[in-house]
Amino acid sequence: MKLAEIKTGPSKSVDESDIRKKTEEMVAAIGEWQLKLYAESKQSLLVILQGMDASGKDGAIKDVFASVNPMGTHVICFKKPTELEYSHDFLWRIHAQVPPAGMIHIFNRSHYEDILVPSVEKFLPETVIKKRFQQINDFEKMLEENGTRVLKFMLHVSKEEQKERLQERMANPKKFWKHKDSDWETAKKWDAYMEVYDTIFEKCDTCKWHIIPSDKNWYKEYLMAEVILDALKDMKPEYPPLVTKMK
Amino acid sequence: MKLAEIKTGPSKSVDESDIRKKTEEMVAAIGEWQLKLYAESKQSLLVILQGMDASGKDGAIKDVFASVNPMGTHVICFKKPTELEYSHDFLWRIHAQVPPAGMIHIFNRSHYEDILVPSVEKFLPETVIKKRFQQINDFEKMLEENGTRVLKFMLHVSKEEQKERLQERMANPKKFWKHKDSDWETAKKWDAYMEVYDTIFEKCDTCKWHIIPSDKNWYKEYLMAEVILDALKDMKPEYPPLVTKMK
Repeated sequence: MKLAEIKTGPSKSVDESDIRKKTEEMVAAIGEWQLKLYAESKQSLLVILQGMDASGKDGAIKDVFASVNPMGTHVICFKKPTELEYSHDFLWRIHAQVPPAGMIHIFNRSHYEDILVPSVEKFLPETVIKKRFQQINDFEKMLEENGTRVLKFMLHVSKEEQKERLQERMANPKKFWKHKDSDWETAKKWDAYMEVYDTIFEKCDTCKWHIIPSDKNWYKEYLMAEVILDALKDMKPEYPPLVTKMK
Repeated sequence: MKLAEIKTGPSKSVDESDIRKKTEEMVAAIGEWQLKLYAESKQSLLVILQGMDASGKDGAIKDVFASVNPMGTHVICFKKPTELEYSHDFLWRIHAQVPPAGMIHIFNRSHYEDILVPSVEKFLPETVIKKRFQQINDFEKMLEENGTRVLKFMLHVSKEEQKERLQERMANPKKFWKHKDSDWETAKKWDAYMEVYDTIFEKCDTCKWHIIPSDKNWYKEYLMAEVILDALKDMKPEYPPLVTKMK
């Protein structure tokens, strides 16, 4: 199924207050499971967030992880690569930031930008970009084989909702800092980005993608919390036994 | 005033439920100020947490920073240096983790361990340790001069409270993972550690130390939240103006 065919919001039958209540419970539960993961210190969780500008990545981080101990969680925002980063292979800076045992790391954007941007902006040869699909698959598989659960989210908003949010950033003084002229330029290339996302979903499915209808934050957070909580439960972290030589 | 003369808990006249209410408000306010700091992205805040084992550093991080966006906060736990770290000067690994503009970094233990442990365990010449006081002062001064506010906390618990907490770690299966036999060995050297702390407070006061009576978590969190909130207010971060060339 193509992104364009996937809804960006809840259907009308969804009850908002019911969803909010369930989300609250799940967010609290995520905090409890995170503590177990941290205490056990054998496996780790990598949450990858992708989405167009203003798709709600920042807010999702704040709200879905509201109950975790900051000690066991680390957010990494990948921006335009620095000169040093760019002088290495594209996975170099990514690999340096994967979670060690016990930790949850959240990637706000990721190595998928290294397919998206050069594909749309056409500043790398297609042959180079094409190889990255398999390179990413191999990389994520390696992580999974070494104890890191990889959860990939694409926050799916409508063009109209994005436009409203970008306008809000130019109208609300508390959001001015989020505004970048270049976001408007990127927005013009919407369809091109959607096309690359569709290719990514098809070719990089070693670890499953979760496409999250994100026009409504409360619905987005509900869906994300559900996936994260399910993953944590499935990882079955356990409080370790007492290790002591004391009598 | 020596640590031994400083109380480790609240006086009897302190009203717990009143304090808890005030703390809740301050914790929420810290979240709002952190957002401003992040949006402004000009200055940063470094929170240094020191204290004996089981003095409540982990819990303080969870509770005092309960309302911040994990995106703007990063906790670094400094453990026993690795071989690589040990092959550098003691501030090398510390400097690598100081907060960039806009961020709050929390050090769970810090470069002060590099005075405390070698002083008590006597594995470095006194001449080497003595130089570290000034080196740390210079380092922290440099950070402050470059836009990083440095807040230093010593969580001050009584020997008796520590003993109870260490025992709890051997009795409560959810806390087994926190137990280390070596903590009991370290506890035996209590007075030696207190003496080094006293020297540190005297010699490393370029940035002020906050000694926090920590036998009661609710009181500890109140005092910490107050210092942090005051610092954030004093830093006066502001939402930046709109930067655009769009018409």
